[in-house]
Amino acid sequence: MSEAVNNQILLSSRPVGVPTRDNFTFIKSSIPEVNDNQLLIRTLYLSVDPYMRGRMNDQKSYIPPFQLDQVITGGVIGEVIETKSSEFQVGDVVLGLLGWQNYSVVDAGEVQKIDTNIAPITTALGVLGMPGMTAYFGLLDIGQPQAGETVVVSGAAGAVGMLVGQIAKIKGARVVGIAGSEEKVQYVTEELGFDAAINYKTTPNMQLALEKACPNGVDVYFDNVGGPISDAVLSLINQGARIPLCGQISLYNSEKQDIGPRIQVQLLKKTATMKGFLVTQYTDRYHEGMTQMAQWIKEGKIKYSENIVEGLENVPEAFLGLFTGENTGKQLVKVSDC
Amino acid sequence: MSEAVNNQILLSSRPVGVPTRDNFTFIKSSIPEVNDNQLLIRTLYLSVDPYMRGRMNDQKSYIPPFQLDQVITGGVIGEVIETKSSEFQVGDVVLGLLGWQNYSVVDAGEVQKIDTNIAPITTALGVLGMPGMTAYFGLLDIGQPQAGETVVVSGAAGAVGMLVGQIAKIKGARVVGIAGSEEKVQYVTEELGFDAAINYKTTPNMQLALEKACPNGVDVYFDNVGGPISDAVLSLINQGARIPLCGQISLYNSEKQDIGPRIQVQLLKKTATMKGFLVTQYTDRYHEGMTQMAQWIKEGKIKYSENIVEGLENVPEAFLGLFTGENTGKQLVKVSDC
Repeated sequence: MSEAVNNQILLSSRPVGVPTRDNFTFIKSSIPEVNDNQLLIRTLYLSVDPYMRGRMNDQKSYIPPFQLDQVITGGVIGEVIETKSSEFQVGDVVLGLLGWQNYSVVDAGEVQKIDTNIAPITTALGVLGMPGMTAYFGLLDIGQPQAGETVVVSGAAGAVGMLVGQIAKIKGARVVGIAGSEEKVQYVTEELGFDAAINYKTTPNMQLALEKACPNGVDVYFDNVGGPISDAVLSLINQGARIPLCGQISLYNSEKQDIGPRIQVQLLKKTATMKGFLVTQYTDRYHEGMTQMAQWIKEGKIKYSENIVEGLENVPEAFLGLFTGENTGKQLVKVSDC
Repeated sequence: MSEAVNNQILLSSRPVGVPTRDNFTFIKSSIPEVNDNQLLIRTLYLSVDPYMRGRMNDQKSYIPPFQLDQVITGGVIGEVIETKSSEFQVGDVVLGLLGWQNYSVVDAGEVQKIDTNIAPITTALGVLGMPGMTAYFGLLDIGQPQAGETVVVSGAAGAVGMLVGQIAKIKGARVVGIAGSEEKVQYVTEELGFDAAINYKTTPNMQLALEKACPNGVDVYFDNVGGPISDAVLSLINQGARIPLCGQISLYNSEKQDIGPRIQVQLLKKTATMKGFLVTQYTDRYHEGMTQMAQWIKEGKIKYSENIVEGLENVPEAFLGLFTGENTGKQLVKVSDC
């Protein structure tokens, strides 16, 4: 194995504004030796996620920045092909925060086994993984939707948004999605059961469209996008509204300071709560979230959607597509066959 | 009594921007008859508060707007001088939401007796009243300061701010106040024990001054003012920061939409919570708050300050003074002697 070629993707320059293909470089390396208590893992699937854009900047944040000329890391599903740990066998399928590359050598403690009997293994990067837990805990712990309330979710057809809306429906709320194409609007209303959805790209007056879609105002706004779309939603919040801040994808690529209406007066008038969160704050409750989500999938109450691109060489394009509103559901790259 | 003249202050026009003396009109009325289960109350002290500015606008809010050409209402301490209720005796001192006038006739259920043995009666409008409860619950329930953390409070020498800082000190936090004069800065640091205070009117770079005063960042920001001062504080918040929104006095008189840096990205990066609140959300816990505040006063751990103007005729000026940064502590008007 150690003579196999390891294709790797490095961050070769920090993007200014929207990232481009030029920020990434492909190199070929050899595979390091597998030492005691280590595993050699062949990459099967890897995940591209909007939060990774933040790690490409050289700034202090909750998660350290990617280092220049180093392999980019993210959620990876792989197969153990060599093991010097008694806890893993060859053929085990595992999940970890690994590199954008064909092969990884890691300490056994850095990955966890995936139970391949519960659901397709790709769900470990989606509905039963980070996006699923983000939707579950952000909506239920912070948003706390009640039956009869109105929940608005932006990025509604994305990996997280599509789950947020479906969980809110399970809780008896009216659900309004905001997305960026007619196809997505149709998908969330017709396939996923959202009560209404708005295509922000073709809607001249978001405020008016939202007023129509939310005749009783907005009780929960699950915010994936930020910017002017969120301004419009926030102008309609009800007394006691809850606003989980999950992402601000419209701003990740912005070079300018984000100027707009200050939201404080509105939060004060409406005695509303706005709370930024990270899924990693809920690590000790993942078991609860995964069990419940798996149950809902089994009962047909939660559908999920994956968009799978093939080939390590297409990882940069899959990542860049997150910011052009192209993808519906969880964006994955299949690197090799199981 | 019913032949006595009742001087009353009406809202005769809605302010545009900063209110002026011309928005108020004085009239003389007769005193209505006292019916069964009613009381005639002579006004002793009345309270002028920043939140009243919002009620002068004709807009939907958590509290209905003042009506044009009607008597303005607010917190009042009065003496019962005629009673047709078995629950009150002549001479009782009471607290209620009553008019800016010499005499009020109210149903007995609209006022509550003040225990004149606990503390001076004026404290019912200040440290043991609405401002005290606002500071107590906003800081402890939302801000949740921990020993060793840094708490910043704006409007630091105001009725609420001065109490917030002292309660935070009791809880072992480092306390930094923001106020609008050297006198106030001195007062909160030298008299009230704040660790530092900044005069925003003479400080050219608030960001820099705050960085110096908060070497470990900001864990709790109790916001009374909003606007650019708050922008500067919020740029320094730590992971997991809590921001109780109590007031936005810098904006109450603004005719323009409040434009500035959108705070969402910062709240997300810092997994911070911003929450607008009203003291009336804590009504069922007032007993706890008043008991604890009275205890701290008794132990010398909480000092309070009142600024008392004499004469009903000076009520408009006392109210207008709230917005020019003139007053330290709770602003009251003494209308008649006990």
